[in-house]
Amino acid sequence: MRIAGIDLGGTEIKAGLVNESGILKKVSTSTEVEKGSEKIVENIVKTIKMLGEKVEAIGIGSPGSIDRKNGIVRYSPNFPQWHDFELGKKVYELTGKKVFIENDANAFTLGEWYYGNAKGCNDFICLTFGTGVGSGVVINKKMLFGKDGIGAELGHIIVSSDGPMCGCGNRGCLESYASAKSVARMAKELVLKHNNSSLLNRVKDINEIESKHVFEEAKNGDFISKYVVEKITDLIAKAISGYIHIFNPEKIILGGGMSKAGNELLNPIIEKTDMYVMKSFKNTYKIELSNLVEDAGILGAASCAIYGMEE
Amino acid sequence: MRIAGIDLGGTEIKAGLVNESGILKKVSTSTEVEKGSEKIVENIVKTIKMLGEKVEAIGIGSPGSIDRKNGIVRYSPNFPQWHDFELGKKVYELTGKKVFIENDANAFTLGEWYYGNAKGCNDFICLTFGTGVGSGVVINKKMLFGKDGIGAELGHIIVSSDGPMCGCGNRGCLESYASAKSVARMAKELVLKHNNSSLLNRVKDINEIESKHVFEEAKNGDFISKYVVEKITDLIAKAISGYIHIFNPEKIILGGGMSKAGNELLNPIIEKTDMYVMKSFKNTYKIELSNLVEDAGILGAASCAIYGMEE
Repeated sequence: MRIAGIDLGGTEIKAGLVNESGILKKVSTSTEVEKGSEKIVENIVKTIKMLGEKVEAIGIGSPGSIDRKNGIVRYSPNFPQWHDFELGKKVYELTGKKVFIENDANAFTLGEWYYGNAKGCNDFICLTFGTGVGSGVVINKKMLFGKDGIGAELGHIIVSSDGPMCGCGNRGCLESYASAKSVARMAKELVLKHNNSSLLNRVKDINEIESKHVFEEAKNGDFISKYVVEKITDLIAKAISGYIHIFNPEKIILGGGMSKAGNELLNPIIEKTDMYVMKSFKNTYKIELSNLVEDAGILGAASCAIYGMEE
Repeated sequence: MRIAGIDLGGTEIKAGLVNESGILKKVSTSTEVEKGSEKIVENIVKTIKMLGEKVEAIGIGSPGSIDRKNGIVRYSPNFPQWHDFELGKKVYELTGKKVFIENDANAFTLGEWYYGNAKGCNDFICLTFGTGVGSGVVINKKMLFGKDGIGAELGHIIVSSDGPMCGCGNRGCLESYASAKSVARMAKELVLKHNNSSLLNRVKDINEIESKHVFEEAKNGDFISKYVVEKITDLIAKAISGYIHIFNPEKIILGGGMSKAGNELLNPIIEKTDMYVMKSFKNTYKIELSNLVEDAGILGAASCAIYGMEE
């Protein structure tokens, strides 16, 4: 098996030649979004050729709404010029290889399944805490897509009726609290109000506060940071307890940029989820951090092709 | 196809002879819980024999926690003396027929699939509003059970962090607001506080207020009843919007005793859910009431056998 896994980012295209054991070779190039769609496709094909070896299929992971069946990017925050863009067809025409495209959260989930902590699981959930809260679900060895292939948006359950506005238009979605952006915003608001926090020593401008600063300063004992971590891990745990009641999964795996906070994020979530799950669900699940780190994107993208070929 | 469908209630056992088109014959007998387990099993077998015709298999629907693979009732609110009771084995020994047991919400869901409004659906959700909030989910033509077969507890997602205590031990589960019991309780508390409601004309004792009174008096313009219906349909709609984002289903079907309120329950839920779903999910789903009415129990039970034999 030789798969090209393409992690399609807004600034960089990371590509890897992947087999059963993992990544054999990695390359990358600039996405050059500003040069238009044709150039982006050209750059994708360039990375595939840079991998140098015969590839059987191509897997692409991209943020946004993807029509996986037809290889169409409906829209993507990284590529605002793309509306119903036939990426799959275009890459196929230039390479002659089968192309499989998934959104980045689904790709992450498949990557965890084939290469990460979900190896061998029949039922598991992945949550990615980044700009937004992404998710993927595998039930009974099948990925959850839903009737129109737009399901598994676990970040958009309402966890607090009168919570902050979410990008989706609702109030109080999990994403409106637990995305890296929301964590930074919550901390900023509190710092502005109380003007007493070690977060102020970390940045020149208060708008530079990032979620990683919040987790680090919580560890250092900063009151505001501790409060924010307490609050958001509590809401994440409440949401996860709901997912456990719904899916009865074997594992819940946490990834995305914010998961780099490690045990500062993981431990309170484990502790609080245990508190919130119903008695009959206690000890039926494990919550773990992704261990794929920087390779999650490429391995996830390659896994889309593996899953697609097996389907 | 000739299936015996057994709707196992705490006071009555309703049985039906069921084929592809529906119920051919109905019988019933007292459960006689007070006479012990052996007598209950005897009464189940009696109803099967009363059906008079050769049956191929037996399906049983029962409230409680059911080990469907092994036909074991782990526990049931109707039969407090049963702990890990091998109901399937016992009925098999006395009849020689294959026996399939599911909890009542799963049975209801399968009944909707084979005989009700979910006919032909590949992805749908059922919610039953009764003593508790039950649920069943079909994804990609398969029932959702989870790793240990205890999943699809959609009534136990937390919809409001500081809500009332739920039977499961958490605060603010959907069930803590939207069960018939919770609706009655909420109305009672408000009537006690304000002592001004047409609900007082419906009952001799305030403790006799039931959810059906609340829906009827809301229709009659009673302020407290209208407030309660507004509040609980809002929370149900928020929960349903979450399920839609998670499952991207074709239909959501509402059943259980409280669904007899009809459009008084359905219409505000439809309206509010439309408000809460993300743009990309608008018009992808339908919310409907179950149309199986009094036959839902028997048809659901029979459907457990049909599903079990096809599995």
